Amino acid sequence: MPEYVLVGKKIPRTDSLEKVRGEAKFTADLVLPGMLYGKVLRSPYPQARILSIDTSKAEKLLGVRAVITGKKDAIPYAWGVLPYVRDYQLFPIDKVRYIGQEVAAVAAVDEDIAQEAVDLIHVDYEILPAVFDAEEAIKEGAPLIHDDKPNNICVHVKVNEGDVDRALAEADIILEGSVKGPGESYCQGEPYAVLADFNSSGLDIWCPNAGPHLKARPLSSALGIPTSMVKLHRVYIGGAFGGRSEVSPADVIASLLSRKAGRPVKIVYTREENRNCIRQRVGWVTNLKMGFKKDGTWTVGDFRCIVDGGAHASVGPIAVSVPYMEMDTTYNIKNLRYDGYRIYTNKTPCGMHPEQNRAFHIAVETYLDKAADILSIDPMELRLKNGAYSGLVTATGAKITSCGLVECVQKAAEMAGWKEKRGKLPAGRGIGMACGSEMVGFPMGIRGGSSAFIKFNEDGDATIISGVVDNGQGNESMVMQIAAEELGLSISNVHLVSADTYICPLDQGAYSQAATLISGGAVKEAAADAKRQLFDVAAKMLDTKPEELEASDGNIYVRNNHKKSQSIRRVILNALSNNITIMGRGYRWPNIDNEREWVNNPHGQFATTYTYGCSIAEVEVDQETGKVKVIRMIAAHDCGYPINVMAVEQQIEGAAFGSGICSGLFEKTLWDNGQNINANNLDYWFPTALDVPNIGTIIVSTDDPYGPFGAKEGSLTIRVSMSAAIACAVNNAIGKMVTKVPLTPEVILEIIEKEKSKGDSEVR
Amino acid sequence: MPEYVLVGKKIPRTDSLEKVRGEAKFTADLVLPGMLYGKVLRSPYPQARILSIDTSKAEKLLGVRAVITGKKDAIPYAWGVLPYVRDYQLFPIDKVRYIGQEVAAVAAVDEDIAQEAVDLIHVDYEILPAVFDAEEAIKEGAPLIHDDKPNNICVHVKVNEGDVDRALAEADIILEGSVKGPGESYCQGEPYAVLADFNSSGLDIWCPNAGPHLKARPLSSALGIPTSMVKLHRVYIGGAFGGRSEVSPADVIASLLSRKAGRPVKIVYTREENRNCIRQRVGWVTNLKMGFKKDGTWTVGDFRCIVDGGAHASVGPIAVSVPYMEMDTTYNIKNLRYDGYRIYTNKTPCGMHPEQNRAFHIAVETYLDKAADILSIDPMELRLKNGAYSGLVTATGAKITSCGLVECVQKAAEMAGWKEKRGKLPAGRGIGMACGSEMVGFPMGIRGGSSAFIKFNEDGDATIISGVVDNGQGNESMVMQIAAEELGLSISNVHLVSADTYICPLDQGAYSQAATLISGGAVKEAAADAKRQLFDVAAKMLDTKPEELEASDGNIYVRNNHKKSQSIRRVILNALSNNITIMGRGYRWPNIDNEREWVNNPHGQFATTYTYGCSIAEVEVDQETGKVKVIRMIAAHDCGYPINVMAVEQQIEGAAFGSGICSGLFEKTLWDNGQNINANNLDYWFPTALDVPNIGTIIVSTDDPYGPFGAKEGSLTIRVSMSAAIACAVNNAIGKMVTKVPLTPEVILEIIEKEKSKGDSEVR
Repeated sequence: MPEYVLVGKKIPRTDSLEKVRGEAKFTADLVLPGMLYGKVLRSPYPQARILSIDTSKAEKLLGVRAVITGKKDAIPYAWGVLPYVRDYQLFPIDKVRYIGQEVAAVAAVDEDIAQEAVDLIHVDYEILPAVFDAEEAIKEGAPLIHDDKPNNICVHVKVNEGDVDRALAEADIILEGSVKGPGESYCQGEPYAVLADFNSSGLDIWCPNAGPHLKARPLSSALGIPTSMVKLHRVYIGGAFGGRSEVSPADVIASLLSRKAGRPVKIVYTREENRNCIRQRVGWVTNLKMGFKKDGTWTVGDFRCIVDGGAHASVGPIAVSVPYMEMDTTYNIKNLRYDGYRIYTNKTPCGMHPEQNRAFHIAVETYLDKAADILSIDPMELRLKNGAYSGLVTATGAKITSCGLVECVQKAAEMAGWKEKRGKLPAGRGIGMACGSEMVGFPMGIRGGSSAFIKFNEDGDATIISGVVDNGQGNESMVMQIAAEELGLSISNVHLVSADTYICPLDQGAYSQAATLISGGAVKEAAADAKRQLFDVAAKMLDTKPEELEASDGNIYVRNNHKKSQSIRRVILNALSNNITIMGRGYRWPNIDNEREWVNNPHGQFATTYTYGCSIAEVEVDQETGKVKVIRMIAAHDCGYPINVMAVEQQIEGAAFGSGICSGLFEKTLWDNGQNINANNLDYWFPTALDVPNIGTIIVSTDDPYGPFGAKEGSLTIRVSMSAAIACAVNNAIGKMVTKVPLTPEVILEIIEKEKSKGDSEVR
Repeated sequence: MPEYVLVGKKIPRTDSLEKVRGEAKFTADLVLPGMLYGKVLRSPYPQARILSIDTSKAEKLLGVRAVITGKKDAIPYAWGVLPYVRDYQLFPIDKVRYIGQEVAAVAAVDEDIAQEAVDLIHVDYEILPAVFDAEEAIKEGAPLIHDDKPNNICVHVKVNEGDVDRALAEADIILEGSVKGPGESYCQGEPYAVLADFNSSGLDIWCPNAGPHLKARPLSSALGIPTSMVKLHRVYIGGAFGGRSEVSPADVIASLLSRKAGRPVKIVYTREENRNCIRQRVGWVTNLKMGFKKDGTWTVGDFRCIVDGGAHASVGPIAVSVPYMEMDTTYNIKNLRYDGYRIYTNKTPCGMHPEQNRAFHIAVETYLDKAADILSIDPMELRLKNGAYSGLVTATGAKITSCGLVECVQKAAEMAGWKEKRGKLPAGRGIGMACGSEMVGFPMGIRGGSSAFIKFNEDGDATIISGVVDNGQGNESMVMQIAAEELGLSISNVHLVSADTYICPLDQGAYSQAATLISGGAVKEAAADAKRQLFDVAAKMLDTKPEELEASDGNIYVRNNHKKSQSIRRVILNALSNNITIMGRGYRWPNIDNEREWVNNPHGQFATTYTYGCSIAEVEVDQETGKVKVIRMIAAHDCGYPINVMAVEQQIEGAAFGSGICSGLFEKTLWDNGQNINANNLDYWFPTALDVPNIGTIIVSTDDPYGPFGAKEGSLTIRVSMSAAIACAVNNAIGKMVTKVPLTPEVILEIIEKEKSKGDSEVR
């Protein structure tokens, strides 16, 4: 691999100091002159017809500046980030579809008055029958949530590659089974907040969001102003995890209140609102058939998945599609059928969760183990035999250009002592392995690329202007490090203007795992462009040719004679003295030939490149109490060439924790007739620091041909695979197949009992 | 002249709506989370030694967060925008030099507590002798204000071109005389205000300022942080007029208080502080000798000027130099001597006033009239005979590349009815003419150029990123209009990010009258660059070559076949669909070959180009009361090609009012032992709308070879000449030479009396 000065090293993040000192401002911290406070009246019923709304008392309350309801004020538009299903009417006029849905809103001079006014609004409802379970909702006769959606099917993604029926007929063994998992919360540290100022030059708005430019478009449609007049401004963001991807109803509510009141309006959600009234993570049921040859070749998979999406479509097919795609690019399986149903239920709408669905990957990986058992093959060898490789074109048409899967498996196995432990641990102990891949840089239409400017300042420092957004993963540091490496500057001499739609050129946002590949790639292009201009000036100063020069340590050197050099600062002064301004620009787009359709028999290239990973977990299961203790987690991730080793390691640790401990063992939303009953940090079962075992992180470097400095993305294959590794380890420990997640003590005890009474797989 | 779609038309300004609706935020309006309020303790003495400062009581007051004084906290640096004389120590430790000088400052949770704390600071002074009049201060034995400046001479600008003594000896007539004028206030509508937030990523600061990038440098020196970390942000500005050019002590005080308190600090000056504690306009005494040939050729000028600069140097030689330069480029006079002394006095320091000094131009123009009288030549013909012309290289080496002086004189004379009126008006009436020129785009070292980016948004709109600053003259609209014209867009489809040092590339600010020439020029370059990229995409869509295309009305047309076209919006969508981002960049610098030195025998090119103008005023003087009534003002200005005709007309009207009525008849600061005694809007004699006569504006178009679309600047030659036109008209009405300004009734009566007793000119 090439050697760089900054790239591939451990670099402290540039936002650390501001965050540690408490200077970093999040949306809730912001104030504007004349700012009002907004509060929302919400539906108390999971499904009910709105008969009338009386706001007269609220409007008369002293200090109230604006009241909005569906009939009087709402916009006749149902927005979505993606144009698949437009089914969300803010402030519905006909009926409400979940507890917590917006019915009216108030802006007042302080929060207490706003809440008092909300309480003074009277709504008459006619309560309607509702349905809360996806498997019930899809049945004939279930209450319909949207009249035009029979069987409450929001989206049905159909994949059919190869010849599944024939392959099943020709398989030596066929396994059949199912795994279920309830919904989860995103659990961002920062409850949702928005500050909106609708004025004559457009909309100025601050909110936690994963893609400012992507969000600007639906906001502009919702508010009827040009996209260029929607100014999403940079602000620190307290976590996203897929839950800050879409336009939030709060964004539009604050904007409408601001327009009506003529003053800025801030809405800060309570912890409960952040759980009940923004997107959550879907519940999921996987039913599978998997067929193998005797030599361990995995020939066929047939999957039917029921996804509980809540009352609205949100990002629609994405959440239903990503898990099968991750499997398709992890394992070379030629015959694949997938039916994914996203089903409406009368619960909080669910959103994006691109990085994994535990109930899918756990099913796949535990049945791979089962096959290995039956065929007497080491599960590791089975995975290596069927794993993807560079050059592979998968069943669904994905092209793999760089692939570190084998190295991930081997290194993780070595660190974990796999050969010494698998099958040789004492009773109640188990070790499990799972693999994953993640798509990086998929097309997003005209909003799929990123562009950047770089300007040089008079003191020789460089400032990047990039739309890149940092939800907490370190994207700001990442682009600064890339620019610094390319320009030969230290990071402290690089500055960043980011994530502001008005200022920054188009960027795809923190979607498609592409902040490094696309946004970072664009910044590298812009830096290279600026460097060419620097070299032109420096070559004259050093009496040589530009192609003889190189930049590092804040200097420009003659490559073969480092005694001849000029500091970049002096080159800039020389340029300015000669009436030249150094101004770089660059852009990067996903590298896709034949784009894939989403819903009906999708086939073709989906992403620019893929990362690979292998998770191994070692667990101890108390068969009396059902408690799973994770002894150790090993996570090996092929990130391409790592930009910031420290950031990648932190991301891998976070992914192992989030997938393995949080999703694998702890997290689920609980519902009672459509009411989320654990919508707070006390009742929602949370792991703590005490629940985190030792995590062994392994970075597998591959040099991606398209990534900046060979980089891809920084941890998501561990998010895909660690909960499955834990499930495999639990199976290994208890000798039974898990059928439900999370693996709480109750679930473990239930599986032990159930397995005693019936078998859920057959062997031919 | 070429014909454009937008350029050369009347366009409403883009900031009008926000200002009319009261949405525009000025610095005093801003709030930040946790913001504190700052107040300053000021010297009550014009010159005194500081013996001790006791802040203990202030520090103990509840709500006080920071107290700073010279000894404990001040920065050991005396900053200046230009490096001529560094004589300003913020919070002096040795002595104070004017009433109002900063001695200590406080930040507290509200303004009242801050003021109370300031009142609790006790300072012991030893009062020292002081001097308040420049002509006294230059004399031997006067109290010295700075020990290292004998005779209180701050700067002595010496010009000696041709052979002045020989030319005087060879002149047919020599006139000798003097004109005096006291200082003036800038009278900005907005009192000075600053909001500073010193944090771990640098300094965020908002304040009214004429050049953010230029101001960042001394602020970075004063605070010891890199220039790139000084982030001056855009904010609306309530007028500058030369008084928002430098770093204000308040900027550094707010920054130091913020650093000490760890929170943002806002300081809003009172109206009195805005008069006493920021820069004011100099007082001026002109002594002249002017020699002519019988045919009216003006052969020689010998000038000695005493400039009252107050207690500190401020921008030093600029204010002393600009008036003679304006004369040098207005009239072709080969022999020129100029001695300009900027003198220290114990009064508020004075700053920039590049556009004119009334006491200089009135002297020159009234003595031109006197020469014309003596030689029996029409004063208009005398001016035409001696006026500058395109191709002229002046006595001091200025190169004139475009010059509309003759047309200005002729058109103004025609509109005024000059031939019918001069010498033919009834008693007590007079008509006068004066000419002026203004330098545009002079070099300012590495900070003399401007640079701009242009990005295209997904809706087909373009956004300019330019450091251009708008002090109220319409610079923001101007660059938007230039970009719109170049790109073929309407102005509503062009957006602007401006005047923010962190975001915007280097710009010279609203100095050197170059916002249009340099900042506008840079934006035009960037737009042309973006247009080339647009044409490349459009050519493919239209199956033609890029050079066959032209852009207008939001479309790109095949030049000779307008039926073939694509909207720019569709071209952008096509570009994005083909993974191309349109990103323009450009820069512009002053066009100077041989730069001029400032102080010692300056010679060489000074500015890129020059504007020309002619002012004519018709007055009626009541010889009993001394009251001057201006009946009409005619102002003809060569602005190059006008970008926005409405803006140029407004600027010309403003210049005629500011120069003719304000400076000519009304404004002066009054002092009593170093105390400014009319430092408010009641006591400072102000004209009102009732004092404004009909103003006839004439735009003379010249096509400047270097200006964007041929443009230069928009009115300043009228600022140079209208007060002189009024003085000439008064002379014409009363038959006597004015010797003092402003021409208040008292001054008129005094001149009438004085002229009776002595002559101040001689004729040979």
